[in-house]
Amino acid sequence: MFRSISSISFSGQLEDKIEAAARAGFDGIEVFREDIIGFDGPPEEIARFAEGEGIGIVSLQSLRDFEGFDGPARDAAFRRAARFLDLAKRIGAPMLIICANTDPQSNADRGQIAADLSDLAAMAAERGLRLGYEALASSAHVNTVADALDVVNRVDADNLGLVIGAVHLFAMETDPAVLAEIPPEKIFLVHLADAPTGRIDRALLAQSFRLFPGQGMMPVAALYTRLRAMGIEAPMSLEIFNDQIRSLPPSQIARDGMRAFHLVEEAHRQQSHTHSDLVAPAFIEFTGQGDEADDLAELLRAMGFARTHVAGKVELWRQGEAVIALNRMEEGLAHSIYLLQGLSVSGIGLQVDDLDQMDQRLGLFHGEDATLDGPSPYGLRVVRGPGGSVFYLAGGPIESAPGFARFEPTGEQPAGHVLRIDHCAQALQPNLFLSGLMFYRAVFNMRSEEARDVLDPHGTVHSRTLANDDGQVRLSLNSSFGAGTTTQRFLEKSGFAPWHHIAFACDDILACARALPPEDVLQVPPNYYEDLACRYDLDPALIAEMRDLNIFYDRDAGGEYFQLYTRTINGVFFEIVERRGYRGMGAVNAPVRMMAQLRVLEEQDALFLM
Amino acid sequence: MFRSISSISFSGQLEDKIEAAARAGFDGIEVFREDIIGFDGPPEEIARFAEGEGIGIVSLQSLRDFEGFDGPARDAAFRRAARFLDLAKRIGAPMLIICANTDPQSNADRGQIAADLSDLAAMAAERGLRLGYEALASSAHVNTVADALDVVNRVDADNLGLVIGAVHLFAMETDPAVLAEIPPEKIFLVHLADAPTGRIDRALLAQSFRLFPGQGMMPVAALYTRLRAMGIEAPMSLEIFNDQIRSLPPSQIARDGMRAFHLVEEAHRQQSHTHSDLVAPAFIEFTGQGDEADDLAELLRAMGFARTHVAGKVELWRQGEAVIALNRMEEGLAHSIYLLQGLSVSGIGLQVDDLDQMDQRLGLFHGEDATLDGPSPYGLRVVRGPGGSVFYLAGGPIESAPGFARFEPTGEQPAGHVLRIDHCAQALQPNLFLSGLMFYRAVFNMRSEEARDVLDPHGTVHSRTLANDDGQVRLSLNSSFGAGTTTQRFLEKSGFAPWHHIAFACDDILACARALPPEDVLQVPPNYYEDLACRYDLDPALIAEMRDLNIFYDRDAGGEYFQLYTRTINGVFFEIVERRGYRGMGAVNAPVRMMAQLRVLEEQDALFLM
Repeated sequence: MFRSISSISFSGQLEDKIEAAARAGFDGIEVFREDIIGFDGPPEEIARFAEGEGIGIVSLQSLRDFEGFDGPARDAAFRRAARFLDLAKRIGAPMLIICANTDPQSNADRGQIAADLSDLAAMAAERGLRLGYEALASSAHVNTVADALDVVNRVDADNLGLVIGAVHLFAMETDPAVLAEIPPEKIFLVHLADAPTGRIDRALLAQSFRLFPGQGMMPVAALYTRLRAMGIEAPMSLEIFNDQIRSLPPSQIARDGMRAFHLVEEAHRQQSHTHSDLVAPAFIEFTGQGDEADDLAELLRAMGFARTHVAGKVELWRQGEAVIALNRMEEGLAHSIYLLQGLSVSGIGLQVDDLDQMDQRLGLFHGEDATLDGPSPYGLRVVRGPGGSVFYLAGGPIESAPGFARFEPTGEQPAGHVLRIDHCAQALQPNLFLSGLMFYRAVFNMRSEEARDVLDPHGTVHSRTLANDDGQVRLSLNSSFGAGTTTQRFLEKSGFAPWHHIAFACDDILACARALPPEDVLQVPPNYYEDLACRYDLDPALIAEMRDLNIFYDRDAGGEYFQLYTRTINGVFFEIVERRGYRGMGAVNAPVRMMAQLRVLEEQDALFLM
Repeated sequence: MFRSISSISFSGQLEDKIEAAARAGFDGIEVFREDIIGFDGPPEEIARFAEGEGIGIVSLQSLRDFEGFDGPARDAAFRRAARFLDLAKRIGAPMLIICANTDPQSNADRGQIAADLSDLAAMAAERGLRLGYEALASSAHVNTVADALDVVNRVDADNLGLVIGAVHLFAMETDPAVLAEIPPEKIFLVHLADAPTGRIDRALLAQSFRLFPGQGMMPVAALYTRLRAMGIEAPMSLEIFNDQIRSLPPSQIARDGMRAFHLVEEAHRQQSHTHSDLVAPAFIEFTGQGDEADDLAELLRAMGFARTHVAGKVELWRQGEAVIALNRMEEGLAHSIYLLQGLSVSGIGLQVDDLDQMDQRLGLFHGEDATLDGPSPYGLRVVRGPGGSVFYLAGGPIESAPGFARFEPTGEQPAGHVLRIDHCAQALQPNLFLSGLMFYRAVFNMRSEEARDVLDPHGTVHSRTLANDDGQVRLSLNSSFGAGTTTQRFLEKSGFAPWHHIAFACDDILACARALPPEDVLQVPPNYYEDLACRYDLDPALIAEMRDLNIFYDRDAGGEYFQLYTRTINGVFFEIVERRGYRGMGAVNAPVRMMAQLRVLEEQDALFLM
């Protein structure tokens, strides 16, 4: 499979784009005409530069509004087209992309359109070039693959073929079955891209909001599989225009693009192969020192956790299947995070069903090893995630970790209703959000839900949830442009490995809540319960009990959900949930939780200022 | 006219929202149910709090998915509705808003829907409450005004009326003529909002992307005028949900909302009244000292300007109708801007056709006087604009300014082809962009074009152009989220009164360019001209001459456009344009200009680091 990317997907100068694509392992790059302007040398040097970087030039993009004109306009279109062909030749591109005419004034006559393309194909043949014809959703007359195929068939020239634009297919709601009618050799190129939602006007969908395959909600992987099954050998090229993605450095864009490729390729292979998956969270590691670490230990004990094992300065706190490692070491990776920002979640331990397969996967997706600058307490493989976060990969529960033998049992026994870790929530800077999403999609094969916006008292928090196949590992990613949101405030002081809360599942939320000292629980505004009584037909006695215990409530088609939040230690807090069939994460309650937390923060700020 | 705003339009706590709305002069506020949760006291105190602030509670928003259910679901819906009515009563709202059911499972039978609302109206009547029924674009069965009117007519209860939702009308492409069929007394409330484009899926349009009237492209003013002409007396209420707007402080949101109201009201009045307008730019004031100011003077002289008048430390540099005031004073408002960020555009002088009318307008729109902390050199009215920018308002050209008598002629004569100031470009922080747009729309009655995105080498610049009625005064507003864009880099060091370039119109760009020393001109990448030759059928001799002189070219339906840019002094630069019928601002060339400027910046940075 020839993997390509379009230069439009990057910001910066053409040289940097070519270099980044080559280093990430792309076989080829399409060159946007506008990018040639900034190239630091004559166009002839572009191919040589690319060759030096070890990457091919796939095409020149794009001749537009060419076909279907009459008289002097037709003559001018052909003169322009000749210059485009010359330019393609000069930059060493073997193919020129032609976007079907978007000018509603152009002639719709299929015969004339074919005649124009036939003449152009002859001009291209003289120069040894191929033409790739792409129907855009916004094209005036040729806006479906079937239309474009009809034109290509009428012309019947060896050097004229189709460009399949994934987003244009989605925008036109084209049945992918139509692709089966295309002779594979007539597909010269495929433009792959994803989009966040189909609920956008087709012109807008085609123009903006593009995402790498896997970042959005479109069936790109299915399209890829269909094309591969047809046996097409044409280059596949990522063509993304997106403000948020362009704000990243070219190397990161290229890496995310390559991950997107591996993701669709893996989905394709999975039809016949088994794959590695996450099984469950193995443990959560906190880094902390002194009073702050003692404070965390006290809060864990209040929730029913017991310090069951100790190895040097690392303590394991356990309840049910939930394990918290409290790492008080004064060296190593976790301690570096402590030095940067104080008590923090310094790592997430994940159980993986097949460590060897996951290792291969990590290599494939360019997962980087985090180099420990000191002894690792668990003897587990370490992977760096988004925002500097750290993952420990284990083949089973923490007892199976090679370093576990060092831990001495204390004899203490947990006593509470916590069953397991339910989910973890991470905050990311807005420009890292999509890249972080791609990490979880590609590296851990997690699925994502459609984006959701949560109203924070001082802005909006953009949120996506991710889960493994059976929903045992759940994450939420959060980001916000507003400087005053709780998410952004947290990132300001804990921007490294920024996990802001860990949720535990329990089997009796009322018992959990009763066992907790009131000062350890986030106080819910009393009117929340007035509101709850409005929204749901709930037993007033239950509402009264939830009010007394500061418990949140939600409901979905699956069932009921109960939540409580603890106080916050250096920005990090816990959540205890009881799921009675409910499948979400209580997003409807997040604004109230943020408001309540903000009040605590503002009271602390006020105290600080007094 | 009763002016209202919905609490959803603000971020923060309900108390702050009520206070901000009251202080901006709103007569009433609608209370979103979710906002009650954060109110610091029992719901009963909300009306009292609002009364203390001098503002009324208009409604409780919103009972959803109520009508059209059967059996136990219907009973539950009525129990919920009863609690909503009780809550409305408790917060002192005279009306409950009901959004037509969005549940596709609900019954479409118009008779049942009417029966449910009839029963609800009776329950509301018992409590002395009114019901406002709103068809949403996303409602399952009742999604047009005509549908909702039919329901209201079937029920025929005094306390059941319609809520007209502007954005829902636009989303459903409802012919506003349908409003004429509604008895005015049956309209209980109007929700006013604008949207950036109609090219969005209807559900999305109704949910997100909302703007204050005047910030978007929808015919809100025409809708307002039509409703007023019908004689409706119902409250008009701004209901905006927008991330960018919510990130502003409540006081600014309320002020922008009030400006939006005055804008639609003014448009309504203008059918019978004359109005004040801008005539032309009067002058541009620069603040500078020492070598930097001398450098600017030198650049002005190179462009053919002459220092025609001097008054103390203020020099007037003139050519054609273009006037630059170079203010080297070491006190006063302009000097404060100098102290903050060095040489800058410290003020824009604007000619106004009727100063008295403009004064009234300024009062109306809460235009604030900038208090000068020292002597003003021109004796003109000073108005503060977005981002701390300063406007001097003149009844005519600068010679008519009261302070002009102090200026002594120098006898120097300009010699060049510059005719006038063509446009000015301002950068704004992303969160101030919409608020800044509202300032120009409301305070100076400028029209705006649809948003346009310009690709900067390191991100995307979001741009809107504004012009007065006859296009003599033109501005562009620019903002960008990317930290590395030229726009954002400029804002980092010149964030106050952030005008980054001033364009002059000339009648002979080639002559202007030949007269300029090459080191004063921004160097265009040579491949730009390769690209130009591809795009347009231009005389190769003209292309060669443009290449030699670093001239940019564009074309639109109106004609041709030629541009050149000067070097940059402390982030500010000039542009000289020749318009041959062209109406735009050369947005297509902006990415190349930004790239060329970035290269200069990066060379300077490299020198600095060596």
